[in-house]
Amino acid sequence: MQMLRTTDADFEAKFTRIVRDRRESDANVGRDVTGILNEVRERGDAALVEYTMRFDEHRLTDDADWRVPAADCKTAYDALDSDLRKALHLAADRIRAYHEAQLPQDRDYTDAAGMRLGARWNAVDAAGLYVPGGRAAYPSSLLMNAIPAKVAGVERLVVATPTPRGQTNDLVLAAAHIAQVDEIWRVGGAQAIAALAYGTKRIGKVDVVTGPGNAWVAEAKRQLYGVVGIDMVAGPSEILVIADKDNDPEWIAADLLSQAEHDPTSQAILITDDLTLARMVADTIDLQLMTLPTAKTARASWDNHGVIVLVESLDQAPALSDRLAAEHVELAIADPQAMFDQLRHAGSVFFGRHTPEAVGDYIAGPNHVLPTGRRARFASGLSVLDFMKRTSFIDASQAALAAVGPAAIRLAEAEGLPAHAHSISVRLK
Amino acid sequence: MQMLRTTDADFEAKFTRIVRDRRESDANVGRDVTGILNEVRERGDAALVEYTMRFDEHRLTDDADWRVPAADCKTAYDALDSDLRKALHLAADRIRAYHEAQLPQDRDYTDAAGMRLGARWNAVDAAGLYVPGGRAAYPSSLLMNAIPAKVAGVERLVVATPTPRGQTNDLVLAAAHIAQVDEIWRVGGAQAIAALAYGTKRIGKVDVVTGPGNAWVAEAKRQLYGVVGIDMVAGPSEILVIADKDNDPEWIAADLLSQAEHDPTSQAILITDDLTLARMVADTIDLQLMTLPTAKTARASWDNHGVIVLVESLDQAPALSDRLAAEHVELAIADPQAMFDQLRHAGSVFFGRHTPEAVGDYIAGPNHVLPTGRRARFASGLSVLDFMKRTSFIDASQAALAAVGPAAIRLAEAEGLPAHAHSISVRLK
Repeated sequence: MQMLRTTDADFEAKFTRIVRDRRESDANVGRDVTGILNEVRERGDAALVEYTMRFDEHRLTDDADWRVPAADCKTAYDALDSDLRKALHLAADRIRAYHEAQLPQDRDYTDAAGMRLGARWNAVDAAGLYVPGGRAAYPSSLLMNAIPAKVAGVERLVVATPTPRGQTNDLVLAAAHIAQVDEIWRVGGAQAIAALAYGTKRIGKVDVVTGPGNAWVAEAKRQLYGVVGIDMVAGPSEILVIADKDNDPEWIAADLLSQAEHDPTSQAILITDDLTLARMVADTIDLQLMTLPTAKTARASWDNHGVIVLVESLDQAPALSDRLAAEHVELAIADPQAMFDQLRHAGSVFFGRHTPEAVGDYIAGPNHVLPTGRRARFASGLSVLDFMKRTSFIDASQAALAAVGPAAIRLAEAEGLPAHAHSISVRLK
Repeated sequence: MQMLRTTDADFEAKFTRIVRDRRESDANVGRDVTGILNEVRERGDAALVEYTMRFDEHRLTDDADWRVPAADCKTAYDALDSDLRKALHLAADRIRAYHEAQLPQDRDYTDAAGMRLGARWNAVDAAGLYVPGGRAAYPSSLLMNAIPAKVAGVERLVVATPTPRGQTNDLVLAAAHIAQVDEIWRVGGAQAIAALAYGTKRIGKVDVVTGPGNAWVAEAKRQLYGVVGIDMVAGPSEILVIADKDNDPEWIAADLLSQAEHDPTSQAILITDDLTLARMVADTIDLQLMTLPTAKTARASWDNHGVIVLVESLDQAPALSDRLAAEHVELAIADPQAMFDQLRHAGSVFFGRHTPEAVGDYIAGPNHVLPTGRRARFASGLSVLDFMKRTSFIDASQAALAAVGPAAIRLAEAEGLPAHAHSISVRLK
């Protein structure tokens, strides 16, 4: 962890280094992934069989090797502890409610020139959701990706997930049951993304692919952008806590560690104007790490990427926060609304002292798939819009065409596109 | 041109081939572009000077070599013919009106659990708009990209455009004046996209890059996706006209040629249930090509990619149209609304007999930057949303956290994330 003070002579240089630090693996997987995509495009299921044997030690032979049947999801769901089942349902219900209110409105109006104009939204036909294997297979991620797709109206929702040595994840299957996933394919990695994008004999192609994954999965999505729609490429998680002196250091320490435990490359940053709080939070983190079961990961993150910024006044916080454009920003201050009004770049903001970021990960309702790596400057969290597209429409009456057509003809002529001009002038004779 | 009939035995095979035909250059420019991006990232302006000399034969020395001053845009604007100036203003006003109505609404509500939830939209700080040199430098494209950015609230709107041998395009400069572009940099190609995304000493970096370009520009945008936001990668233009027998073949022929004249790889398709109309349109296209100044391009497009599909009934048209997912769909039929209601995948739809597609290119108001190459399955036309991003927010009262917190704790425990659980439980003591 490094502690910076805005009064330090080298503050600007140090803070700039933190803003620029990408923390993302520049794993040079581009060529490997290109090869995998080509193989799956050309050889389809045969390539999937080979890669799945090689990477997951799972043999794809019978239907049961290829797909997890819906009945297995139901079985996993039925076997859940009742409090866990209720928690998943509460999360699903709240996520659904938030995303239903996100559905866009169609437009249809006639303007002063007598031209009817508008736009209509439709869901994509099919969406593919990648669910990583191993420790990053979170049922909450499945809900956060699948529910917006279903709310958008996607008719065919497909999950692809690796099942190393045949092992499935019961929590994920139970979540798939709740989210009413239509198909679950037991393939992973870049080869799974290729199968979703291009389609194979067994796996029908989809229109949009979302969901987290390792460097190969992320690179495959990047390379297939344009063949299918994708969600934003995601990097390690981040939290920025802006806290005044009136905070319990236990709470703030817990919040910082809640992101640090995700990954050694995660980043937790505290901005405060109170040196005593800063010191107590640092000490409390050390104490909490002594008993935290995920301490190994959390300590690596905190030691290498943790930052405490001591400001002279919290008035300095919004500008620093905007430069960080963090995925998660907690405003543990007396008047969070006033500071929120000054922020421009953040994935999601958590108001006040009783909104720990983890509430947003699971149960609040807004999506937990959020822009990382300073991408909140230009990107948004996952939403129903990622599973929809807009068709604009124009309906000109004869009179409306007569009114605006001559100007369009003039522009087409100026651009050297005479057939454009003619398609209008031929109607004005 | 090929004529297909749905009653042909090989119709399905032939139509599938048309749907799959990408028409896009698979120019293998990936490695060249990677090299250019790295050079600009590492050497900044010096790399721009070298590439601009090499590719554009333009020497970047003084400020005037680097930038087109606002005064030059004003001069170009003042020198316009008055009818052309009026046409540009009418287009700009109508584009602005359509996009202003597109601005998204913020959300802010408190739900039954007492949790305040919402989302707020902000413009990105800066946007870069690429304007190609040569014959593809269209003032209409500048308006269609720049106005949504300005309507979104982007404070710094930057144009990058090559000026081969120092030549600027007066029409584009006049349009930049109307759209109130803030900076115009005389650089082009992948090096311009790199400069916009990474920033150099002279050119401040932007958050979003949009605009058309050649294969190098498109590849540069693809590779920089995630460093900045980008609009959809665009391919050759397309039009699908669905027409019944009650059409003037002159009009339909003109509409098909209006897309064919864009590029030899553009595609014009007619679906009709009337053999007589089909034949007359084909003949009329041949006639119009005899006098069309852009006949060379249009003929190449029509000969190689033009299609007429003769259906038994126009009831078959929506399903075929959805498979094509065309950029532009004209419904030259008696009841366009009824067919529109059946369509799912199209970039923009033009209703009835008096709405030629070219009206949408220039003057109607909706954006003419639309998904090509079947991407209307998952992508939308350019909009103010491409220059904005959404920050969600959560504000839990102590009571709300007490109500939903335990479920979140249970989920965090199940996912093996104890610090997440602790950040909530520590507040419930």
